[in-house]
Amino acid sequence: MNDAAMHVLRVTDLSGVLANALLGGVLARARGFDLVGFAVLAVVSGLGGGIIRDILLQKGTPVALVDHTYVLTALVGAAVAFLVPIRGRAWERSFPVLDALALGCWAAAGAQKALSLGLEWPAAIALGAITAAGGGVVRDVLLRQVPAVFGGNTLYVTPALLAAGTMVLFHAAGQVTAGLLVATGVGAGLTLLSHHQGWRLP
Amino acid sequence: MNDAAMHVLRVTDLSGVLANALLGGVLARARGFDLVGFAVLAVVSGLGGGIIRDILLQKGTPVALVDHTYVLTALVGAAVAFLVPIRGRAWERSFPVLDALALGCWAAAGAQKALSLGLEWPAAIALGAITAAGGGVVRDVLLRQVPAVFGGNTLYVTPALLAAGTMVLFHAAGQVTAGLLVATGVGAGLTLLSHHQGWRLP
Amino acid sequence: MNDAAMHVLRVTDLSGVLANALLGGVLARARGFDLVGFAVLAVVSGLGGGIIRDILLQKGTPVALVDHTYVLTALVGAAVAFLVPIRGRAWERSFPVLDALALGCWAAAGAQKALSLGLEWPAAIALGAITAAGGGVVRDVLLRQVPAVFGGNTLYVTPALLAAGTMVLFHAAGQVTAGLLVATGVGAGLTLLSHHQGWRLP
Repeated sequence: MNDAAMHVLRVTDLSGVLANALLGGVLARARGFDLVGFAVLAVVSGLGGGIIRDILLQKGTPVALVDHTYVLTALVGAAVAFLVPIRGRAWERSFPVLDALALGCWAAAGAQKALSLGLEWPAAIALGAITAAGGGVVRDVLLRQVPAVFGGNTLYVTPALLAAGTMVLFHAAGQVTAGLLVATGVGAGLTLLSHHQGWRLP
Repeated sequence: MNDAAMHVLRVTDLSGVLANALLGGVLARARGFDLVGFAVLAVVSGLGGGIIRDILLQKGTPVALVDHTYVLTALVGAAVAFLVPIRGRAWERSFPVLDALALGCWAAAGAQKALSLGLEWPAAIALGAITAAGGGVVRDVLLRQVPAVFGGNTLYVTPALLAAGTMVLFHAAGQVTAGLLVATGVGAGLTLLSHHQGWRLP
Repeated sequence: MNDAAMHVLRVTDLSGVLANALLGGVLARARGFDLVGFAVLAVVSGLGGGIIRDILLQKGTPVALVDHTYVLTALVGAAVAFLVPIRGRAWERSFPVLDALALGCWAAAGAQKALSLGLEWPAAIALGAITAAGGGVVRDVLLRQVPAVFGGNTLYVTPALLAAGTMVLFHAAGQVTAGLLVATGVGAGLTLLSHHQGWRLP
């Protein structure tokens, strides 16, 4: 993988962790949680999907426990959200974009990891979607809410499935780096488009 | 294992996946979920117990991610439940039978897998019960309900424990195929009998 | 590790399992659960943290499924709580002490296990806290409650983090046995002190 592409993906990945950690902090503040609550929600929101993916793959300790940049990024998000109320137009405009980029990036990376470990394409697509949406599901369960992805929202899991599917096609063609970039774009673009257009699944 | 017995067990296993996927769809419809909600509840209901078993065993990627027949069967169940409202006497009569057979089959298969991987009988019995009942517990948690197996129902985990115990005895006698069939029967029979008689645990 | 220290830690560990299993039983009784509900809550409360730790470590089947003393202790706790209503001053006075000792012991043991398997100190501290607090979080989710550790209580995760951090320091100095004892004391002492003083996180 060439260095520039890898750098772009790394920044996208960590931006997604930070944005979701901030979201976890916003939810923690709304419920009056303490510092531990902020930290747990930030870690679950930002890293939960990848941890579930790695637990399902059963191929070694989850990346989030080995590469400390991830937990550190999530904790920075929790700390910022704890110190500063996150709200206003800047947040409302930037969060959907960062979250959509994270969705595409995580779906692509999850599918790619599954393929590189020898799993077949149906499992790769499933694991891509789980990487993208799993953290939000666990966060909702911890907050005693029915997971938002089950219905009532604009497209979220669907773009993740399509991003993972895009990754599968590029991987089959031997174009991993291009696949990660294009799949991230497909996932992010469709998420934002459906958010803007109000598209929902039946 | 002889082919006929293996075929019977395979059909029982997949029938259980299908029946539980349909049940997941029924619950998704009652809550107005979208297609993703139908699919997730079908997969969790039909495959959740086996996935938890394989995560606890830590001996490789869960079967449900490797043998795609499982996910495909669950998704077919979700699609059918999405297209056709599942209800009426045929469903009410056949679901308890299919679910009881799945309970026995999953408890037997879960215990056998644990034994074949070298775990001792107490762990095998526990994993048999987890395979049979785990999917329902996760489904209930996702739906924000206290798991049904905790109380207020006719026997469910108890028949699974007895089916797993039966499997342990047959395994010790070197009769794996017979054990899978008899244990499935023990689990299914006791579940249906207690359902019919209204037996409950204290 | 010398035998006397190992014996002390083993007794502390199993006392914690028993105390948390009794607590699970108390909660099961309050909700009118049946025997299965008592058993599941006892196992989850007493063993859940260690099982989550071992699933995250991905280094073999969880100890709770291999060393049957753990499940047996949890089931004894469930049986006692089922047969005898656990309440009164003796329980109210002894539970916080046993729970605090378990918190310290589990945090120390969780951190030590992570370090001995080659993980670095940030992961060891995180896994120590997860070992100490994870069972309670899952129990709360099963009971459809927002996890108590998220806020509104005296210090709980904080002492676990400090106990795990203490273990990391002693491990770096090559003093594992002393570290387990001191870290247990640090965790238990701070938990009880904050319980007594009403200390809370912001």
